[in-house]
Amino acid sequence: MPRIHFQQQLAALKDKLLAMAALSQQAVISSVEAYLQRDSALCQYVRENETAINAAQREVDEMAYELLAQEQPMAIDLRFILAVIKINGDLERVGDQSMSIAIRTQELLAYPAVDLPVDIASMGEHASRMVRSAIQALLDADAQFADAVVVMDDEIDLMNRVARTELMKVMEENPDVSLQALNAIIIARALERIADHATNISRDVIFWIRGADIRHQVSSAID
Amino acid sequence: MPRIHFQQQLAALKDKLLAMAALSQQAVISSVEAYLQRDSALCQYVRENETAINAAQREVDEMAYELLAQEQPMAIDLRFILAVIKINGDLERVGDQSMSIAIRTQELLAYPAVDLPVDIASMGEHASRMVRSAIQALLDADAQFADAVVVMDDEIDLMNRVARTELMKVMEENPDVSLQALNAIIIARALERIADHATNISRDVIFWIRGADIRHQVSSAID
Repeated sequence: MPRIHFQQQLAALKDKLLAMAALSQQAVISSVEAYLQRDSALCQYVRENETAINAAQREVDEMAYELLAQEQPMAIDLRFILAVIKINGDLERVGDQSMSIAIRTQELLAYPAVDLPVDIASMGEHASRMVRSAIQALLDADAQFADAVVVMDDEIDLMNRVARTELMKVMEENPDVSLQALNAIIIARALERIADHATNISRDVIFWIRGADIRHQVSSAID
Repeated sequence: MPRIHFQQQLAALKDKLLAMAALSQQAVISSVEAYLQRDSALCQYVRENETAINAAQREVDEMAYELLAQEQPMAIDLRFILAVIKINGDLERVGDQSMSIAIRTQELLAYPAVDLPVDIASMGEHASRMVRSAIQALLDADAQFADAVVVMDDEIDLMNRVARTELMKVMEENPDVSLQALNAIIIARALERIADHATNISRDVIFWIRGADIRHQVSSAID
């Protein structure tokens, strides 16, 4: 009976983390949309959402601590809870980076719109897909899918490097739009960082599944 | 007797974390020095140090997991181990940011040195002091000292904002040095991020000390 209760608590913890993930995911999408549409209200929304993310992060952390303190879980359950704590931290940082995009966008609204050689829409879609996939890998306990997310990181790294080079050229050639170009560099970089956090999340999923397996085998062999 | 053994293991975990902190601290100092001295060898050193940091991070994590799995610690010891896991993650990110400074510096070496309106030496000293102080707060279990580190963050945030504004002006007025100015913006921002990680570490120290106290009081009242 206590084990069933414990499994319910683990499921509740997973649900809470998914709610946190939904907020972070929303932050990415809204901040990119704010940039693309030059929408001040969306920037404001991202700031308010950040408060909700911070509250959700504390709730997940507290619940994970309670479970560790009261249930003293072993092996795979322990690794799952530790993975949740780490993933929670990465999701909060995804929120931070989205805030950074919203702040830069808000600053940009005081300046004329210019056409820049950077595809923020594609980078945003790529980063957002990576976060979504990493969470899907967690949901499905699918280490192989998590591996695929890690591989996706190379593409956005490349997109970011190319954008940076192109935007640097714009800065040198048209100093009058250097603020717009600089903010685009910072936003591209924030999206690349969001992808890094998705990579971290995927690694935590892999650690949870494979690390736990390895540990289980080792301890079986010793016992 | 097992409790004594457990306390020894906690002490060993703390030592391992301090070794990790020393590597991260070294990364900050070396990357700033590399920028100030335009020293390619120091950039290379920071890259190699990063490998050592990643290895140390894994060791601390593994040791913390072993302790959680085998000892099932309660209350303040549990919070300490969880704080160690989080601090470990922040120290690794301090290493990442230092790498970022080294990479930007390496890129800068292909361009002429220019005098820029940013005091990287002071910012580096400030960020470095914050990391050192956060670790000191952990060592001394001093939540009040950790509070002081959190307050220090405002100053470097301001330094970063001022530097960014000044460097933007340089970019607009002298597009021929815009690469140097952009890299200085990114380096100033990396130092501000390092300070953020020191703030996170301080918060984890506070959580370990005060959170455990609060929890203890609450559970005593309920039990």
